[in-house]
Amino acid sequence: MLRINAERLIRDLLHLRAFGSQSSGVVRPAFSQADMQARYWLREQFEQAGLTSRIDGVGNVLGFSPHPGKALLIGSHADSQPTGGWLDGAMGVIYALEIAKSLSESDSYRHLPVDIVALQDEESRFIGCLGAKSLTGVLDDHVVRHATDKDGIRLVDALEAAGLSEVPRERLDRTRYIGFLEAHIEQGPTLEVNSKRIGIVTEIVGVRGLKAIFRGQQNHAGTTMMALRRDASTALYAFAHRINQVFAAHAAERSVWTMGRAKLVPNATSIIPGYAELDLQFRDASESQLDRFTALAYETADEIAKSSLVGVELIEARSPVAPSKMSESLYSYLERSARQHVPNAWIHMPSGAFHDAGVMADFMPSAMLFIPSIGGISHDFAEDSHRDDLILGCQVMATAVVDLLASC
Amino acid sequence: MLRINAERLIRDLLHLRAFGSQSSGVVRPAFSQADMQARYWLREQFEQAGLTSRIDGVGNVLGFSPHPGKALLIGSHADSQPTGGWLDGAMGVIYALEIAKSLSESDSYRHLPVDIVALQDEESRFIGCLGAKSLTGVLDDHVVRHATDKDGIRLVDALEAAGLSEVPRERLDRTRYIGFLEAHIEQGPTLEVNSKRIGIVTEIVGVRGLKAIFRGQQNHAGTTMMALRRDASTALYAFAHRINQVFAAHAAERSVWTMGRAKLVPNATSIIPGYAELDLQFRDASESQLDRFTALAYETADEIAKSSLVGVELIEARSPVAPSKMSESLYSYLERSARQHVPNAWIHMPSGAFHDAGVMADFMPSAMLFIPSIGGISHDFAEDSHRDDLILGCQVMATAVVDLLASC
Repeated sequence: MLRINAERLIRDLLHLRAFGSQSSGVVRPAFSQADMQARYWLREQFEQAGLTSRIDGVGNVLGFSPHPGKALLIGSHADSQPTGGWLDGAMGVIYALEIAKSLSESDSYRHLPVDIVALQDEESRFIGCLGAKSLTGVLDDHVVRHATDKDGIRLVDALEAAGLSEVPRERLDRTRYIGFLEAHIEQGPTLEVNSKRIGIVTEIVGVRGLKAIFRGQQNHAGTTMMALRRDASTALYAFAHRINQVFAAHAAERSVWTMGRAKLVPNATSIIPGYAELDLQFRDASESQLDRFTALAYETADEIAKSSLVGVELIEARSPVAPSKMSESLYSYLERSARQHVPNAWIHMPSGAFHDAGVMADFMPSAMLFIPSIGGISHDFAEDSHRDDLILGCQVMATAVVDLLASC
Repeated sequence: MLRINAERLIRDLLHLRAFGSQSSGVVRPAFSQADMQARYWLREQFEQAGLTSRIDGVGNVLGFSPHPGKALLIGSHADSQPTGGWLDGAMGVIYALEIAKSLSESDSYRHLPVDIVALQDEESRFIGCLGAKSLTGVLDDHVVRHATDKDGIRLVDALEAAGLSEVPRERLDRTRYIGFLEAHIEQGPTLEVNSKRIGIVTEIVGVRGLKAIFRGQQNHAGTTMMALRRDASTALYAFAHRINQVFAAHAAERSVWTMGRAKLVPNATSIIPGYAELDLQFRDASESQLDRFTALAYETADEIAKSSLVGVELIEARSPVAPSKMSESLYSYLERSARQHVPNAWIHMPSGAFHDAGVMADFMPSAMLFIPSIGGISHDFAEDSHRDDLILGCQVMATAVVDLLASC
């Protein structure tokens, strides 16, 4: 068995955290100064693990093994949410680094070909899973040229500022790999609530996003009688409340939906809003359930429009993401390892969050391992995991990597 | 009869509009550069109308008549909403100016004592009806010292920047006045919908404001199962929709309520909001109706809190404004004048918007006259009134002023 170095793992995690550290979280969005500094450090670390390392034209840090044979690719993303937690993405990158370092020190396993990667912009500053999309050849040049962040900064300018304009983008050679493994914090409470320490991901749920637009008439809140109002906010509240009722009545076991972003114009206490927007996002592991929700959203929009003086329009707010199956032949090794290390404390589970492995799965067999998030909290400075779980997850992954490569 | 000069009225209205003019509206919030420049111009105009004019320590522009006897005070406010219409407040100020100018040119009526005023900050940049409150002695020094605008700018600093720190605040002498008259655009559709050209205000409705605060748990929108969510937005939508139902079921004829400002934190598509706020404002001419709405709001908050995992708290978001009766002995002169000029095109009506006359009414008899707003639109660049109505309103007021003073 390959024993990882727990102390070094934690030290490297804390080292990566220092780039963009703020309070208990990190602020390390893709291509920020903190992000690029983290990537230079990672490249150096990848080299120290005996790999040939380079940063490619979209900021991916790759480490290639010099050893022959079909390789495994391991990693995750190193960028963070605008105000993110310290483990989201970072943990999977440092697991990959630690496994590479452990392999390079092991007389028995040094020869095993493992490539590692710190992917770029999983968190959608410009393009969600930009790095994974670029590596797997599904990134559209036209999209790259026109992508901007929420402040209107263009991706091409961010690439230039990061010194990457002239750097070639890597493309993975599909024939080189057995598959891709990604470790990640769960970012939800399922493991914790069920007292489990390892989650083996069976599929990544699909996501659809709709934007509801409400068009009424802005007016004075004191002088416009109720019967004459065309209040965009009233229609929004009615729509949102109704969606919560009809979606609940038609939900599958693990369906989720969220209306976490609303905009009223002008958003003032004494003014009847003439315009409003609401984002409706929903996720499920089944396409037919996603279709059902889409149909219900359109029915509800029609219903609200018919019963008010406000226009209601639904538009697709994002490209739909189809549910992604993980490779059973790959995750069976994670299972075997979990059984060995924590026989009664692992489960199969879908991933409710999207991950780079969802993009990779369209290119080659992919699998994911989760460890528990304390309180299920993520995308927040308060995100954290127990140290024992951080160490266990890496050990489970290392064992699986060695078994998998040894069996090929 | 005193004939106003319609051409000069429109010219002066357009002149005042030029201060802070933007697109078809004005941006002239209290103490802005445009506002202070408008006030210097008004002081000069008041002098040209034969009045002794000064700007006081909160920016009110006053014009005092040199003629003996009990006087009438006429005017409105010269400040605008952050993005306001060109007539809101401004019209009533220019009516007062035009009546003073017409009086000064009239051999028959030159002796009638009419004071005029351009009040400050009716629109609540710092303190709603700041000018009227200061003139009538109900402005608390402690409140002045601590008042800030929505950007955190302090009133005391705005006064200093406007050069008013050392200028004394005027206090009206109650014994000098018969009462206060204010003309204003309706800011609602009632006159237009009923094909009327003059509204005689019988009362100004009362206003109460509550803020609902929803405290849940911020979390990832993909990984947190519905049953475990403490989604502040879901509670907000349920509360707002329920308020719209129960208020409608218990409304009086002219009750209005508005939830035009909502805030979700962090307001992102993929994040379950952990915190949300909603402003609930309601108005009615009866205190008991306002009490009924207040009780219903608290019951609804309890109901939502009990049926969800989200904490719901209601706090008073503004000082309640009690309904204000206009003086019948004063507005009977406006009625008589309206009967004379447009026998079938005037009505009695309450004001759904608050006005300086609501503050003045606590100090001396007060009355208001409305002219129609096109489409009922106000607090918007699109605010406008027909030129014929602008002229008619001033003439109706001038006739009433002369009759009233002649009868004293």
